[in-house]
Amino acid sequence: MKHLRTLNDLTINELEDILNMAKQMEGNFFQQHYPPVTVANLFLEPSTRTKCSFQVAQNELGLHAITLDESSSSVQKGETLYDTVRTLEAIGCKAVIIRSSQKAYYKELENITIPVINAGDGAGDHPTQSLLDLLTIQQEFVIFQGLDIVISGDIRHSRVARTNADILRKLGANVFFTGPEEWMDPAITKGNVITIDEAVEKAHVMMMLRIQTERHQNEEGLSNEEYHMKYGLTLEREKRMLPEAIIMHPAPVNRDVEIADELVECSRSRIFKQMKNGVLARKAVLASLLNLKGEKQYAHII
Amino acid sequence: MKHLRTLNDLTINELEDILNMAKQMEGNFFQQHYPPVTVANLFLEPSTRTKCSFQVAQNELGLHAITLDESSSSVQKGETLYDTVRTLEAIGCKAVIIRSSQKAYYKELENITIPVINAGDGAGDHPTQSLLDLLTIQQEFVIFQGLDIVISGDIRHSRVARTNADILRKLGANVFFTGPEEWMDPAITKGNVITIDEAVEKAHVMMMLRIQTERHQNEEGLSNEEYHMKYGLTLEREKRMLPEAIIMHPAPVNRDVEIADELVECSRSRIFKQMKNGVLARKAVLASLLNLKGEKQYAHII
Amino acid sequence: MKHLRTLNDLTINELEDILNMAKQMEGNFFQQHYPPVTVANLFLEPSTRTKCSFQVAQNELGLHAITLDESSSSVQKGETLYDTVRTLEAIGCKAVIIRSSQKAYYKELENITIPVINAGDGAGDHPTQSLLDLLTIQQEFVIFQGLDIVISGDIRHSRVARTNADILRKLGANVFFTGPEEWMDPAITKGNVITIDEAVEKAHVMMMLRIQTERHQNEEGLSNEEYHMKYGLTLEREKRMLPEAIIMHPAPVNRDVEIADELVECSRSRIFKQMKNGVLARKAVLASLLNLKGEKQYAHII
Repeated sequence: MKHLRTLNDLTINELEDILNMAKQMEGNFFQQHYPPVTVANLFLEPSTRTKCSFQVAQNELGLHAITLDESSSSVQKGETLYDTVRTLEAIGCKAVIIRSSQKAYYKELENITIPVINAGDGAGDHPTQSLLDLLTIQQEFVIFQGLDIVISGDIRHSRVARTNADILRKLGANVFFTGPEEWMDPAITKGNVITIDEAVEKAHVMMMLRIQTERHQNEEGLSNEEYHMKYGLTLEREKRMLPEAIIMHPAPVNRDVEIADELVECSRSRIFKQMKNGVLARKAVLASLLNLKGEKQYAHII
Repeated sequence: MKHLRTLNDLTINELEDILNMAKQMEGNFFQQHYPPVTVANLFLEPSTRTKCSFQVAQNELGLHAITLDESSSSVQKGETLYDTVRTLEAIGCKAVIIRSSQKAYYKELENITIPVINAGDGAGDHPTQSLLDLLTIQQEFVIFQGLDIVISGDIRHSRVARTNADILRKLGANVFFTGPEEWMDPAITKGNVITIDEAVEKAHVMMMLRIQTERHQNEEGLSNEEYHMKYGLTLEREKRMLPEAIIMHPAPVNRDVEIADELVECSRSRIFKQMKNGVLARKAVLASLLNLKGEKQYAHII
Repeated sequence: MKHLRTLNDLTINELEDILNMAKQMEGNFFQQHYPPVTVANLFLEPSTRTKCSFQVAQNELGLHAITLDESSSSVQKGETLYDTVRTLEAIGCKAVIIRSSQKAYYKELENITIPVINAGDGAGDHPTQSLLDLLTIQQEFVIFQGLDIVISGDIRHSRVARTNADILRKLGANVFFTGPEEWMDPAITKGNVITIDEAVEKAHVMMMLRIQTERHQNEEGLSNEEYHMKYGLTLEREKRMLPEAIIMHPAPVNRDVEIADELVECSRSRIFKQMKNGVLARKAVLASLLNLKGEKQYAHII
């Protein structure tokens, strides 16, 4: 693995390796390297959560980071993404993490030799988000084979729904979808659309997507309350879930829209666990692509 | 002390402890910790001065910091402050420093277990600013008992005027107020309003507040020059101050409005000393709330 | 040398010393200092490239940095630049790197005792850019005496053209200029204006400037394609260059305007080498002004 562009580029073996490595990253901290290892965070669209998670991962791996935000990058009027990244390479960055609204932006970067790590490419992919989702499910159920996983919400416009669905199927899970009909996409759902009431009784994992409250209201004309009652994970529906079932959400959450306020931190919820896992997944990706070594590298500290 | 929300939460003993600790922080630098200790600076409204001061304090304590500015945070559309802070906690931050325009924002954060340090809550409080003010006075006069302290300017809208007045009184100082009548607030001044000409002859400490030049002109219709002559600390008035009296100002200063240009760095001025003390006060608060230990922790270097 | 304001302040000896030091900075990394050394990057106008270069230099020198962008700095409404820099000094910064659109802003900073490093002052100067240009030429040709160097583009409005021309002449090079007539400035060119076709056949070094595509079209009414054919470094013109000649450009590049797309990374191009040299030049300036010492300071690692 030389870059991380989309999770679909990985073989199942590579995927399992990176998930194992992520697990070993818990309580595993690297001293700062000598010579120092600098990476660049290039966030061409805002994403506080993902950026902070990468920054914590970088700290814990003993890396130096320089972070370029959309405001600074708008500066580079007229410069191609390729030239920006070549510059970061030229000044000594050893990897670049990129978030962009442009789908598959990394195709412009074929000639870049340092690792490019995709932190979200518009409606495309968001591989470290998918990794942390997989890690969270694996921590809970150990194997994916036979799990019933329901993805709920705006499937059509979600960058993670398609990738997660593809990979979960490859790993042997049964993937179902629920949500307003106009948000379903047959290319992704392949006919496995069920109602939210069927979903909560069947699912081992309820993967809620964030809904865009603005967009939603324009389509079906439902208020947030109406959406919640018709499609959301209500308190009543949670009671019908399997004893071992868990709830996931990539956050930020619209409380009382896709999920009831009280469920965000209920005992089934893995929402903040997912965020913690995001740091582990990103540490594993960075350590793997940068081939980081250190005396304490695999010593399990805590 | 688990959080630092408002200085009024501290007992006089706790206050004295933190001031003593601040004094010991001069020339006291911590190595980076292993495992690394990461804190988050969440600045939901701009505040370069306070933010930089916290960042320097964090460097000197061997901490890692991730900093979220208002621009990045506007991103988190619809997310509650609680969810943002829970996320920072989940990804491994050990404390969060928050600046917000929302008064008492910390009431939303009751269930957060990592220390919350208030770096200013709108018209509410700004406890580390108050601490550095107290530290500056204590360095000069050792005890507060019997000192005559005048707070000058927009008392009604100042987040520090009320807190400083309360605490200075508790510590035994006599607190007076001066400024345009419409800026006086009987709940704070308790009748101790004097003219600027009385003030300069009585004060051991002249605590100038920054005036909002925009707002001011709308009220009394005075030009900056007129305000300076009527209410400001002019060169002439400085000459009538007590030999041992000092001048303080939280900055940024409007030169020749609340204070004459030449007085900003005169021998009585402690304005830049206050900024230096801000780093010491913030180091003490962080070290105390994070219970930082290090081999060189209390070794006095310089 | 106490500050770095403009390269013209340096004697030829000082200039040679700093270029030698820059060469030694390759592969030369400093451990973090104890006590920590903190510097401030104050970027009052956007400049991603220069800012990132300074940040990498600071990392490699073991420095801590706090970075203030134009967005944060706009905050300091009404505060003078002097007060901002005095604040940075007061909170413990040991040097300040400043980028501003205001020409010769450093004249306000005469009483600042920490080193001020000019990272660009509007239409004024950009001394670390000039240094990296000189370093790149010296690496290639060892001595400047007798070199034919052509500066191409908007001479009149370029902050580096004038400084580079002055210094290259002092160092013994022959400096020529080419570009649209309205961009030539007799005070700089001193009559040495030639056509681009003469230039490419004579130059040891073609120093291309970035053209402002917006401004240009308003003046002569040329499209980008027409400009490229009339004044640009085309593929055809590159073929007529001397065997040993090199191409330089400060970036960001307008591909197919001032220079043909395929030439940006051709074997003559030193464009990304210049960026790498920028880090070395900035490390030398910082190490020199901060008088940095470290056990591994001059150990050549790679």
